[in-house]
Amino acid sequence: MKQIILGTILLLNISLTLNAQEEDKMMKAFFDEALTDQTAFENLRYLCKNCNGRITGSSQAAAAVEFTFQVMNNMNLDKVYKQPVQVPYWIRGEEETASIQSCKFGFKAVPVSALGMSVGTGEDGLSAKVIEVHNFAELEKLGRENIEGKIVFFNRAMDPTMLNTFGAYGGAADQRTEGAARAGAFGAAGVVARSLTTSQDNFPHTGVMRYNDTISKIPAVAISTNGANLLSKWLKNDSELNFFFRTTSYELPEVTSYNVIGEIKGSEFPDQIITVGGHLDSWEPGEGAHDDGAGCMQSIEVLRLFQKMGIQPKRTIRAVMFMDEEVAQRGGDEYARQAGLKNENHYFALEADRGALMPKGFGISAPDERLEKILALKKYFEPYGITYFKKGGGGVDIGPLKQFQTPLSSYIPEMQRYFDFHHSGNDTFEQVNFREFQMGSAAIASFIYLIDKHDL
Amino acid sequence: MKQIILGTILLLNISLTLNAQEEDKMMKAFFDEALTDQTAFENLRYLCKNCNGRITGSSQAAAAVEFTFQVMNNMNLDKVYKQPVQVPYWIRGEEETASIQSCKFGFKAVPVSALGMSVGTGEDGLSAKVIEVHNFAELEKLGRENIEGKIVFFNRAMDPTMLNTFGAYGGAADQRTEGAARAGAFGAAGVVARSLTTSQDNFPHTGVMRYNDTISKIPAVAISTNGANLLSKWLKNDSELNFFFRTTSYELPEVTSYNVIGEIKGSEFPDQIITVGGHLDSWEPGEGAHDDGAGCMQSIEVLRLFQKMGIQPKRTIRAVMFMDEEVAQRGGDEYARQAGLKNENHYFALEADRGALMPKGFGISAPDERLEKILALKKYFEPYGITYFKKGGGGVDIGPLKQFQTPLSSYIPEMQRYFDFHHSGNDTFEQVNFREFQMGSAAIASFIYLIDKHDL
Repeated sequence: MKQIILGTILLLNISLTLNAQEEDKMMKAFFDEALTDQTAFENLRYLCKNCNGRITGSSQAAAAVEFTFQVMNNMNLDKVYKQPVQVPYWIRGEEETASIQSCKFGFKAVPVSALGMSVGTGEDGLSAKVIEVHNFAELEKLGRENIEGKIVFFNRAMDPTMLNTFGAYGGAADQRTEGAARAGAFGAAGVVARSLTTSQDNFPHTGVMRYNDTISKIPAVAISTNGANLLSKWLKNDSELNFFFRTTSYELPEVTSYNVIGEIKGSEFPDQIITVGGHLDSWEPGEGAHDDGAGCMQSIEVLRLFQKMGIQPKRTIRAVMFMDEEVAQRGGDEYARQAGLKNENHYFALEADRGALMPKGFGISAPDERLEKILALKKYFEPYGITYFKKGGGGVDIGPLKQFQTPLSSYIPEMQRYFDFHHSGNDTFEQVNFREFQMGSAAIASFIYLIDKHDL
Repeated sequence: MKQIILGTILLLNISLTLNAQEEDKMMKAFFDEALTDQTAFENLRYLCKNCNGRITGSSQAAAAVEFTFQVMNNMNLDKVYKQPVQVPYWIRGEEETASIQSCKFGFKAVPVSALGMSVGTGEDGLSAKVIEVHNFAELEKLGRENIEGKIVFFNRAMDPTMLNTFGAYGGAADQRTEGAARAGAFGAAGVVARSLTTSQDNFPHTGVMRYNDTISKIPAVAISTNGANLLSKWLKNDSELNFFFRTTSYELPEVTSYNVIGEIKGSEFPDQIITVGGHLDSWEPGEGAHDDGAGCMQSIEVLRLFQKMGIQPKRTIRAVMFMDEEVAQRGGDEYARQAGLKNENHYFALEADRGALMPKGFGISAPDERLEKILALKKYFEPYGITYFKKGGGGVDIGPLKQFQTPLSSYIPEMQRYFDFHHSGNDTFEQVNFREFQMGSAAIASFIYLIDKHDL
């Protein structure tokens, strides 16, 4: 009896070891293939160069839908389709102009970008005196008598000492998203918001803003950090200077766009769906390379890597190109709504929307027992220097799947450089490194492969 | 008695905890200051933009010596001086031209760069048929009858599946360093070597080569990876094509240059020297931003961070800008020779010469007992995601200090992107991210601070 038990344990150990070897081998194969094959990188190049400025509703966004549909349609997948989504259609208009006009220091043109969904200034632009604030408390203290008719300049920098740059972003983002509504309530004529970037540069970094329906809409722009520093410096010695900006943005009626979806059907549990996605829309005037062409192409690459390795997953793996993450998050909402209508079983979901930098790991939200098992996957990734496996994952696009108790995961790459590119003209294909991008693809493919294989 | 022991243990624990807190606080202060202050980054910008192409012996190298001397001289250090070094003086000459000339496929200009120390082709350039090989074994198998009078095209790529890109570089570098000597032995007319980069791009990546004194010197160039791929493709269907290249490089007599050294004097053990250094010389036509302006400026930043935090180190901390790492490594040799002559006590040395990418950690060569203690410093760095603490450190410049049994250390940043820049026109200031660069400065300062404080 003892010998039988011992034998069983030995066999079990050998089997576990063999399994581990199999998984290590498959991961090595993923990484080797990803670092050798240029398909995903060349597709990203095409998306960036031919569908740049693909803001929700635009013809470039339609071109991106068509391109990614064709890419997946040519891959011999089990199913490729477009899921209709109604999306807002905001038009940036002509290139923005802005300048600081000081009788003391002179005239200086500065780079600005209309915030997404902002109204325009009208043909003649807007010129007014400027009041600088750093938060809403300062704004409220100043009150209507100091604000009315002026341009409010929100100049709070992202905290450079925070190593979690997404945290630093979150700590400064309200001035962009809510600044116009808050300043408008005190009768401000317009808003200039410091760009949300850790870089000292000449790129305005745009992003969405939202009005309050009860307050009249005032135009709002982002100013580059160098421009913001200059404006602040001049203001200190010339509070009477004028700021001028001209934007011609406007909104058109909503249009139909699409999430683009490709699937490999599961062999054992075809009704259990694992979603891997990024978002297809991106801000102008950049190319949406890091945000989020990369996440889209990495998601498609997961399917290609599975095919290339001849892996038949137990569950259905879906690559989803979500539409409209940047403006109204309609793609993610519609994806979950359709999942509910069709009573789909969403087993797991991962969002890749933090750029194409070096993979660090994954954030995961799941019930404790599942979470613990998923976090234990770390050991497979350590040889690749991928060691961030922590609680807390999700994303704007997969977030609505939470209603189905689906475990949600975020792909986490390095983040010190990310805000150099984010929402700016600097977010170009040239800023993506092939190896960092493809190590990300291989890491995501490995993670999904292990989740499926180990029934996590 | 038991109580006394317990009390002592408790006190000891409290003291250790307090110490740990002090060190954690100091590291946080280093990182906060580094991520907020632009001095080092602006000095790097100046070095890159005003002393670009600072190859050993050149006027740009002399300008870099003067600039870094002035920077350190203005820092109120205890000692700043130049240490004379005799260096080779190789001149690249006019911009190189090259083309593939095929009767089948046409004429195509391709980017090449003369290898450092290569002779030129002469005014008229060199045109010859091409034989492609991937290693010296193939070369020897072909023999003189297949090689004589031809251009040997070494086309071995860096292995893209190696995550240690420095290892992949080492695995392909012999064709650049020895290719001309090996091919020359079989009567080749010239050598074209595939650029040592993991990137598919149009930059030739240069670097030093060495002749064998007994064999006649033939001209050698690096060709961009895109150029190499095209040449190889055309050769497969047109073995009769000609390759043309023209280089006008030549050597002048050696000149005097300098290592530039700045010191903070130690308070307890001023005779014990801790060296932190990078190299000042760099290849043309880039700006030597990652290789190795960054390492130089990070070394100076270590001194600035110590000053800013009011740290009086126990030992003398030296920032050393080594001259001539790229060509003949005279700076490192002379630094060690002078150390020997002056009977200096070199307690520890660190070299920063792997670019300004995200800090990963440190490689260390030291006797086992010291090594173990140094590796244990890892715990202080883990909150910063800096977790690479492994045996094996050194570098070309500090290597000669080994004769004094000095423990040697390498600063190890991320390495997937490094060979995009290395030795090419792509190594510009714009490729350096402020945060990655300064997290490196803070990491090195922290490491040196702990080595000194803990007497490691």
